[in-house]
Amino acid sequence: MDEMKPASPAKHSLLDRLKSLRHVWRDIAASLGAVPKIAPELPEEDAELLRAQMRDCLQGRGGEVSARARAANLGRSYLGLNAEGRMKFLTIMAEEFGPDHHQVDAAMSEVSGAGSPGQRLAAMQKLRLALESAQLRLLTQFNGLPDGVKFLVDLRAEMLSFVEASPAIQFLERDLRDLLAGWFDEGFLEMQRITWRSPAVVLEKIMAYEAVHAIQSWRDLKNRLDSDRRFYAFFHPRMPDEPLIFVEVALVQGLAANVNELLDEQAPVGDSAKADTAIFYSINNAQKGLAGISFGNFLIKRVVDSLSQEFPRLKTFATLSPIPGFRAWLDRHLREEEFSLLNSEEYRQIISLPGGAAGLAGLLQTDWSHDNGVADSLKPILLRLSARYLCEKREGGARVLDPVAHFHLTNGARMERLNWLADRSQKGLAQSAGLMINYLYNLSDIEANHEAYSGQGRVITSSSIKSLLRQV
Amino acid sequence: MDEMKPASPAKHSLLDRLKSLRHVWRDIAASLGAVPKIAPELPEEDAELLRAQMRDCLQGRGGEVSARARAANLGRSYLGLNAEGRMKFLTIMAEEFGPDHHQVDAAMSEVSGAGSPGQRLAAMQKLRLALESAQLRLLTQFNGLPDGVKFLVDLRAEMLSFVEASPAIQFLERDLRDLLAGWFDEGFLEMQRITWRSPAVVLEKIMAYEAVHAIQSWRDLKNRLDSDRRFYAFFHPRMPDEPLIFVEVALVQGLAANVNELLDEQAPVGDSAKADTAIFYSINNAQKGLAGISFGNFLIKRVVDSLSQEFPRLKTFATLSPIPGFRAWLDRHLREEEFSLLNSEEYRQIISLPGGAAGLAGLLQTDWSHDNGVADSLKPILLRLSARYLCEKREGGARVLDPVAHFHLTNGARMERLNWLADRSQKGLAQSAGLMINYLYNLSDIEANHEAYSGQGRVITSSSIKSLLRQV
Amino acid sequence: MDEMKPASPAKHSLLDRLKSLRHVWRDIAASLGAVPKIAPELPEEDAELLRAQMRDCLQGRGGEVSARARAANLGRSYLGLNAEGRMKFLTIMAEEFGPDHHQVDAAMSEVSGAGSPGQRLAAMQKLRLALESAQLRLLTQFNGLPDGVKFLVDLRAEMLSFVEASPAIQFLERDLRDLLAGWFDEGFLEMQRITWRSPAVVLEKIMAYEAVHAIQSWRDLKNRLDSDRRFYAFFHPRMPDEPLIFVEVALVQGLAANVNELLDEQAPVGDSAKADTAIFYSINNAQKGLAGISFGNFLIKRVVDSLSQEFPRLKTFATLSPIPGFRAWLDRHLREEEFSLLNSEEYRQIISLPGGAAGLAGLLQTDWSHDNGVADSLKPILLRLSARYLCEKREGGARVLDPVAHFHLTNGARMERLNWLADRSQKGLAQSAGLMINYLYNLSDIEANHEAYSGQGRVITSSSIKSLLRQV
Amino acid sequence: MDEMKPASPAKHSLLDRLKSLRHVWRDIAASLGAVPKIAPELPEEDAELLRAQMRDCLQGRGGEVSARARAANLGRSYLGLNAEGRMKFLTIMAEEFGPDHHQVDAAMSEVSGAGSPGQRLAAMQKLRLALESAQLRLLTQFNGLPDGVKFLVDLRAEMLSFVEASPAIQFLERDLRDLLAGWFDEGFLEMQRITWRSPAVVLEKIMAYEAVHAIQSWRDLKNRLDSDRRFYAFFHPRMPDEPLIFVEVALVQGLAANVNELLDEQAPVGDSAKADTAIFYSINNAQKGLAGISFGNFLIKRVVDSLSQEFPRLKTFATLSPIPGFRAWLDRHLREEEFSLLNSEEYRQIISLPGGAAGLAGLLQTDWSHDNGVADSLKPILLRLSARYLCEKREGGARVLDPVAHFHLTNGARMERLNWLADRSQKGLAQSAGLMINYLYNLSDIEANHEAYSGQGRVITSSSIKSLLRQV
Repeated sequence: MDEMKPASPAKHSLLDRLKSLRHVWRDIAASLGAVPKIAPELPEEDAELLRAQMRDCLQGRGGEVSARARAANLGRSYLGLNAEGRMKFLTIMAEEFGPDHHQVDAAMSEVSGAGSPGQRLAAMQKLRLALESAQLRLLTQFNGLPDGVKFLVDLRAEMLSFVEASPAIQFLERDLRDLLAGWFDEGFLEMQRITWRSPAVVLEKIMAYEAVHAIQSWRDLKNRLDSDRRFYAFFHPRMPDEPLIFVEVALVQGLAANVNELLDEQAPVGDSAKADTAIFYSINNAQKGLAGISFGNFLIKRVVDSLSQEFPRLKTFATLSPIPGFRAWLDRHLREEEFSLLNSEEYRQIISLPGGAAGLAGLLQTDWSHDNGVADSLKPILLRLSARYLCEKREGGARVLDPVAHFHLTNGARMERLNWLADRSQKGLAQSAGLMINYLYNLSDIEANHEAYSGQGRVITSSSIKSLLRQV
Repeated sequence: MDEMKPASPAKHSLLDRLKSLRHVWRDIAASLGAVPKIAPELPEEDAELLRAQMRDCLQGRGGEVSARARAANLGRSYLGLNAEGRMKFLTIMAEEFGPDHHQVDAAMSEVSGAGSPGQRLAAMQKLRLALESAQLRLLTQFNGLPDGVKFLVDLRAEMLSFVEASPAIQFLERDLRDLLAGWFDEGFLEMQRITWRSPAVVLEKIMAYEAVHAIQSWRDLKNRLDSDRRFYAFFHPRMPDEPLIFVEVALVQGLAANVNELLDEQAPVGDSAKADTAIFYSINNAQKGLAGISFGNFLIKRVVDSLSQEFPRLKTFATLSPIPGFRAWLDRHLREEEFSLLNSEEYRQIISLPGGAAGLAGLLQTDWSHDNGVADSLKPILLRLSARYLCEKREGGARVLDPVAHFHLTNGARMERLNWLADRSQKGLAQSAGLMINYLYNLSDIEANHEAYSGQGRVITSSSIKSLLRQV
Repeated sequence: MDEMKPASPAKHSLLDRLKSLRHVWRDIAASLGAVPKIAPELPEEDAELLRAQMRDCLQGRGGEVSARARAANLGRSYLGLNAEGRMKFLTIMAEEFGPDHHQVDAAMSEVSGAGSPGQRLAAMQKLRLALESAQLRLLTQFNGLPDGVKFLVDLRAEMLSFVEASPAIQFLERDLRDLLAGWFDEGFLEMQRITWRSPAVVLEKIMAYEAVHAIQSWRDLKNRLDSDRRFYAFFHPRMPDEPLIFVEVALVQGLAANVNELLDEQAPVGDSAKADTAIFYSINNAQKGLAGISFGNFLIKRVVDSLSQEFPRLKTFATLSPIPGFRAWLDRHLREEEFSLLNSEEYRQIISLPGGAAGLAGLLQTDWSHDNGVADSLKPILLRLSARYLCEKREGGARVLDPVAHFHLTNGARMERLNWLADRSQKGLAQSAGLMINYLYNLSDIEANHEAYSGQGRVITSSSIKSLLRQV
Repeated sequence: MDEMKPASPAKHSLLDRLKSLRHVWRDIAASLGAVPKIAPELPEEDAELLRAQMRDCLQGRGGEVSARARAANLGRSYLGLNAEGRMKFLTIMAEEFGPDHHQVDAAMSEVSGAGSPGQRLAAMQKLRLALESAQLRLLTQFNGLPDGVKFLVDLRAEMLSFVEASPAIQFLERDLRDLLAGWFDEGFLEMQRITWRSPAVVLEKIMAYEAVHAIQSWRDLKNRLDSDRRFYAFFHPRMPDEPLIFVEVALVQGLAANVNELLDEQAPVGDSAKADTAIFYSINNAQKGLAGISFGNFLIKRVVDSLSQEFPRLKTFATLSPIPGFRAWLDRHLREEEFSLLNSEEYRQIISLPGGAAGLAGLLQTDWSHDNGVADSLKPILLRLSARYLCEKREGGARVLDPVAHFHLTNGARMERLNWLADRSQKGLAQSAGLMINYLYNLSDIEANHEAYSGQGRVITSSSIKSLLRQV
């Protein structure tokens, strides 16, 4: 899902921060004395040193304080490796420090052979303990290090690119995900409003992490923090400078239909006191390493609460969202079965347009949006097709194809209105043929909508979208 | 361990706070409409309503926000029950919402029958999931409620008094402990200095929670926060007004030998700039519901760091600690085998003392400490015996009997000096025969001391204590 | 004005804090080396040393940093003096470091002889400079010291008790008042809500400074900070622990008629969400040294704003105030001209009451309020007389006698309702014969009321008070 | 003084902020109802409306709250004027709301005719009051408005450009300066460290206000906040987003000799733990409206304190400063009396250099600094001349010509070392011929140095500079 995908900068964040973290952790580990140097690609002779480090971490000699020092050293070793070395590091950890199979087998036997419910429960507790792998205990120790939680989050981001390679790494990744899911429970998150008074270190990250509508400059960012805007983010107490997810809101009159206007730095500042509508025009997950641990639902709910309190006149809460999979879906279908999408009238119309000789797919490669005549002709066709796409399900499932649609439907929104030429940026045209959609959050319907979609797979739409769907 | 046992007030905190929490949670649950009223003793007909509430919580209809509202309602139901009703509530939760035995069995089969290491790991993941009980998912939801974490901590405190009754509740209590242990990992804790500028709401709790040397009044507390003292506590971000553990420090010259002088409100304020010694004269665990989740080691380490930075002249870090089990141990031994403790010379001396006719045990029941002659005669005997007690191990174990001694030895301290008539308070005489001990934290020895005790069961003592031990 | 008079503790605050301030300032002045010791009663031979110190301060050698060190020394000298010595200190400062008369005369000549408006303005500037005395420059330097502003405030409090003695000290006191008035301009003040989360150091001072309805204990204070109360204070950035003025508010339904009920710690907590009325039941100026620099008007205005925002249901803002001068006024009049106050019917009625033989003045000395019969008989008489007292003007002026009434009328309130047996505390009976009055702050009338009273001397009252006034 | 001159952006700040302030103040003044519209150039018919507004402000009807509303209106009127209108506004205020001459004359008579010292002092108090003009009371009222203090500061900045025009405006400007000097007393200022965690709104202003070495971009700024740098600013509690003065420090080993290297974003980050020297490489006064109210001395003193505490290894505190008046002085002298500056040997040498035919002045217009041969030849000549310039006094005074030199000498620094080609930026070459100087702050000499310069006009220099001065 494009809207919710973390920005690419997260991918490199670990590497970017190597220098400073290794420096900080070196001081923490200073009490341990010199440690053997490990070559970046982790040759076999150095791997043995690494195993010794891991065993040291687990033995826990010297109390927990020393344990953390050892964790710092282990982290420094990881950070000093190149991609090949890291792959080896994770493989060693996953294959050699996984759950103890003997213990697991013994505990399973005990569960099976339990003579009483009480004995069985006690045995199950042992079994659960046995399933907690050494690797998890290793990873947990990073929690106490400065930036240790961020390290684990970014470590998981790296793991995710290796999981295909090995079931052991996949098991390790799951262990880490469960650990992070416990720590990043919504109850622990703090919503903060982001303003021009926020620390530069946070604003800088927001600029890096915004992936839906990229922030061009500090000036662009400042414009998004003006008095007719609101900007909220979730933070975790152990990662105070790192937004986890953030949402950008415009306070306007009526449903916003065009994101380029919202982002225009030259546009006059609106009067927020007169606004009746809050438009969520960008939602971003910022931490790739927290994939699969979702906070979006909660953030939207809390932002709606906060806005309602600050602006009692607000009546409508809606998004202005991209349709990121539309063009790819369209191109695929046009390649495979153009006539199933277009009726003959439409087909004829298209090939008669300037640039239309190669069909719709070809036409969409051109600069069609700047030719009013062509655009007008395409409008009914693309509106109809995008509505169809948005409601299309995954094969064999009850979930719609489009990731952004799936996110908002799950949250209880309904598809409200398609907007023509709503995003004429290069990306907007390439992904969504310039179309955008408003998802409407009607507080009194959210629960029923959520139930309809999540329970029965029904997609809730407005009448305008229904009528688009009814067109052949 | 007396020094580390949470204060009794924590036991009642849940009940004390019922009124306000139920009020707050009612508002959160308001969206759910009216809920059926449950009688305090939880009669069988109401138990069915409770089961329905629990199932509702677990089904998670309406997204996570609604789930939290349902958790609030469930919490309110619990708070409305009396002791009998709560026991039933926990029994229902533990017996009916424990792990799913069918799923566990199925997963165990899959693990056993796995055809490849990869399949086995995948099956183990399923097994781990199956072992996560419904009750744990129920409890986790309280995290998002205001004061929900404190509720869970106090709930565990209540559970601990029921665990003997049922293996199911014991399993539940373990589930909850593991959940809390994850949340209260040291990495998440924040050390704060407590001063007379701290919020009254925090100071009030510290007064309630101090159990080693009870705080008599606000004036007494203020005295412990004066310029020649330091006071530190750990807090968790989700329980900002609740100290988890705290330590009181006096900045003095030389090892302090008497706690009554330290606590004397009339004593002149010392000059902290001249202090060479920091005396930790009281350490308290404040949350009964976090029993078994230890932070003391970490707190002491961080306090030493903080003090070293603020007062570079400090050379010695030591405690002035009670010997809480001494008198009970002494009385038991005197009853059972008086002659094994005392040599005939000592015995004769004692019975010749005023009040000594009934032997040492009897003499200690009298007001002996105010009779200088008697006290002088007892001094060598009690010093010798207390040294012996302090080094005595649990039957069959490597751990010393005295809980405070065990705590500090585990942390790497050594037994430094016994102090005669160091605590003449009623409690000090009743528990420790007025004796106190300094445990010394010598930074360069901590690791080795810890290793000696935890690894090999060796108790590290100063030469003065060694010579007491060598006396017959 | 009793309600607005600062609490007695402030009177001694300087002396109380001597020890610590002298210590802190000693460190600041350390760079100056040893200073001559001055005897507490400031004998003449030491006075010369003091003059030298003052001259040193004014010469400003070594830049402003050194100047502050010298100010610290001068302050320490003052703090070391006894009452006699301080009187001498202030006399020396006032008489020898006042304005330079030669410079003033010269500047006045220049003004008088100025040849052009421009020259005259320039000369007036010189004159203004000449009128700025050396003593003011001396005092200003304390601003930069820790607690220096509080020192000056308390210094003025001390000066105020000496002003009668000498015109020079009066001039000095005025200089200091003008200096403080500039610094304590309302624009610099910060309103803070006081809660049970406020720092103990602030709460402790509030307990000391509350003079209208004394705070008995920490528990009493906590009761005044409960959820059906609000408590606000003004602070100055340079005196962050010192409340300047504070107001206590109860959120109730309808006008409160009895302050003992409001202060009752056993009374159930009200539901603030249902309140329609905010009762200001205690307003205290906390700093005697800021006498004549008023913030009360501003505080009430801002508290009304803050409450209106937090509780939109509030319709009425009123006080429940003492009538502090009533009994004294009554006794004086009864002594001088009893028959002008009472008509013969009333007089006869009073002497026929148990204890009334000695007339009203004598009766009010008895325990009359606990005798229902007597109290019922006195009620109409005292209500009538108190209404008359409240509206009575100072001789030859447009200002009412009662200081609390004057304060609220100036602020634009109106006299709303007299409350019988509204304060049965010893003080309430002694000062106000148990009566209290509600002053009503009706936002739309405040300006007109203020104008009527301040401009034309008209006292605005409700119809119920008007009808009391119409009675003979 | 270039180093200390506020940045040009401050000049326009008032105009830049018009829009938002007028909006905010409109809401504050809303209670007053509609106000007459005043044309931007303030024609005579509108001037009468303005006079009425000013009189309204002064009458103070309706209490101080209304007074502030009127001040808000008056401020809005000013902000709505153009330059011509503002000049008229200030003229009206200065000429018609200045001191009351009759009152002043009467008070002067009373002082002259006083019969006793006490009467004279009382009369002088009246005189002082009479000299407090209505305009000052008007201006003081802005203190209570949001951003009112900043308004007054910027208003004074505007006034300063009008003072030549009228003695009345000059008197007004002095009134305002005295008011601001009281409010901005060092005791009220707070030093804050500026970091990359500071609010963007503050960093943005620092970028605008830095005038010594302009900040090119956010990246440039971030570089100046790196771990081997420190950045401090003074703030006033009523202008929390507005730095008053700031200083940039580099932590290095040995005296820094080249500012371009310090500012190089590509240079590696230094190890602050190894630094022995703190180089103050940029000091900026940020508020033009506070001209003549100096904080630089205090800031340097406090920064030295703060750095000494954080980095006990620091031994040397020095600046790396421009010599802003050198080239202008040189050109003037070369024009007027070339031979008095250069000896014949030097003269001959110069004209023989490539580009030197037109003499030194002409040569310095060329790109001489990139020609090593030419630069080498000029080095001894320019070093000698710059030393001479730096020590040269103002005609008839004891103050050196160079403003930066004067600032640091007054603070007690000594001239330590001239650095060749230390600033090759366009500005550095144009103003200082690329030269820079280190002023050394030796803590133990500061007081004596200050005394030598401020008291006796002696310029304290190092031996290296002395030897330059001894050359002919």
